[in-house]
Amino acid sequence: MPLLLIMQNPDFFFRNILVVVSYKGTNFFGWQKQKKEITIQGEIESALFKVLHEKINLTGSGRTDAGVHALGQTANFKIQSQIKDWKLLKALNANLPDDIRIRNLKEVDEKFSARYSTKKKTYRYRVYTEKTKSPFENEYSYFYPYDLDVKFVKGALKYLVGRHDFTSFSSIKDMNKSKIRTIKKIRVYKAGGMLNVEFVGNGFLYNMIRIIMGTVIDLHMHKRKPSEMKKILNGHNRDLAGSTLSSKGLFLVDVKY
Amino acid sequence: MPLLLIMQNPDFFFRNILVVVSYKGTNFFGWQKQKKEITIQGEIESALFKVLHEKINLTGSGRTDAGVHALGQTANFKIQSQIKDWKLLKALNANLPDDIRIRNLKEVDEKFSARYSTKKKTYRYRVYTEKTKSPFENEYSYFYPYDLDVKFVKGALKYLVGRHDFTSFSSIKDMNKSKIRTIKKIRVYKAGGMLNVEFVGNGFLYNMIRIIMGTVIDLHMHKRKPSEMKKILNGHNRDLAGSTLSSKGLFLVDVKY
Repeated sequence: MPLLLIMQNPDFFFRNILVVVSYKGTNFFGWQKQKKEITIQGEIESALFKVLHEKINLTGSGRTDAGVHALGQTANFKIQSQIKDWKLLKALNANLPDDIRIRNLKEVDEKFSARYSTKKKTYRYRVYTEKTKSPFENEYSYFYPYDLDVKFVKGALKYLVGRHDFTSFSSIKDMNKSKIRTIKKIRVYKAGGMLNVEFVGNGFLYNMIRIIMGTVIDLHMHKRKPSEMKKILNGHNRDLAGSTLSSKGLFLVDVKY
Repeated sequence: MPLLLIMQNPDFFFRNILVVVSYKGTNFFGWQKQKKEITIQGEIESALFKVLHEKINLTGSGRTDAGVHALGQTANFKIQSQIKDWKLLKALNANLPDDIRIRNLKEVDEKFSARYSTKKKTYRYRVYTEKTKSPFENEYSYFYPYDLDVKFVKGALKYLVGRHDFTSFSSIKDMNKSKIRTIKKIRVYKAGGMLNVEFVGNGFLYNMIRIIMGTVIDLHMHKRKPSEMKKILNGHNRDLAGSTLSSKGLFLVDVKY
């Protein structure tokens, strides 16, 4: 590349690094950096500073709320250092708390953005339906000790698959102008007493999955029909839907590009 | 029963109650009640006091150390109250922290002792062998990111099955006169990156499983042969064995009567 072009391109000397991150969200105030609270983004940026001695900004695929877990959150950042990928991975993990782990780290195209290049995101919500709480599942599920079966949940959620205006399932704090999103797929399965619901989509509104799940629980609790989900969706009104279910049952499973 | 006999038998008016308990050991100083520390026995006795308004002594099947978890620890206690079993179960759980749960509660024969009637105990030790720690497994496993395979572990542990003097695998703090114990069965299996070892026996010495597992790791780490386990067992000397592995990988699975 001619020198002039290099100088016009401030990213030329930078390597764009993508990381895949797992975290147990319990003890963090969510992903997004905050001045006075411990967050996942904050902890990773602080580990980057310890390793590379410079202030580096992390771009996450999106925020996760306080208490939400991640198996495969993604983020990217730009560095000038020529440190080997495996060395950087190891050094970052050595400087992170045990409840945050970088699972993978690799150099990607300079134009790649963990946020804007997203094609598909998968979230999982876990509902524990055994009669007695489990000391091991308590931080990782919503406890609902009733006979909530796969058929009921599938029956309610089938109306949400596809492209819809999800205003009814959107927090009043959601700042997106358009409430139209596409849910590509919803998978419901039970493993022991754990009912799992997986949502695949190109993006979700603020609190959308937690409100959807709260609505399913609400319908079941009040012995309403699963088909009422359709009316709630088409009413385009947050008041029609149920409460926002606890963040501790929610996992960001993966982000595809 | 004639009144005289009733009066000579102080247990006559008491019901003997057996409970099956799960707990996440991370935040407790073990099972055994202590004056100044939070323990599982202490928490359950305190819940019993809140519910029945009397001081009740709990007899556990045995102690578990600080950090050790239980899927099915057992304990019994005697009460005069005629409260229904399901009500007592519910009330106790309502008064216990989330990381301790009574899973089952039932009346048993007056002579039954959770400690002395034990026929069989199963413990599981979990070793996480993936390259990177998992935020979700960290409290529940020992992290050993090397190629520890089932064959090696089985090869080392097979010498321990049967009736042996386990002095080599006994903590110097163990107060039992006889170090002879019988291991009925050892099962080794891998699930993902998690290597699980299950020990079935009629009883185990203090720290015995953690020292056995520490010895397996030690042999593997120093590229020694699995068959050296036999020499260590027959040496009857604690110094021959490896270190005591972390309590967080250990689970008391169940106790059979």
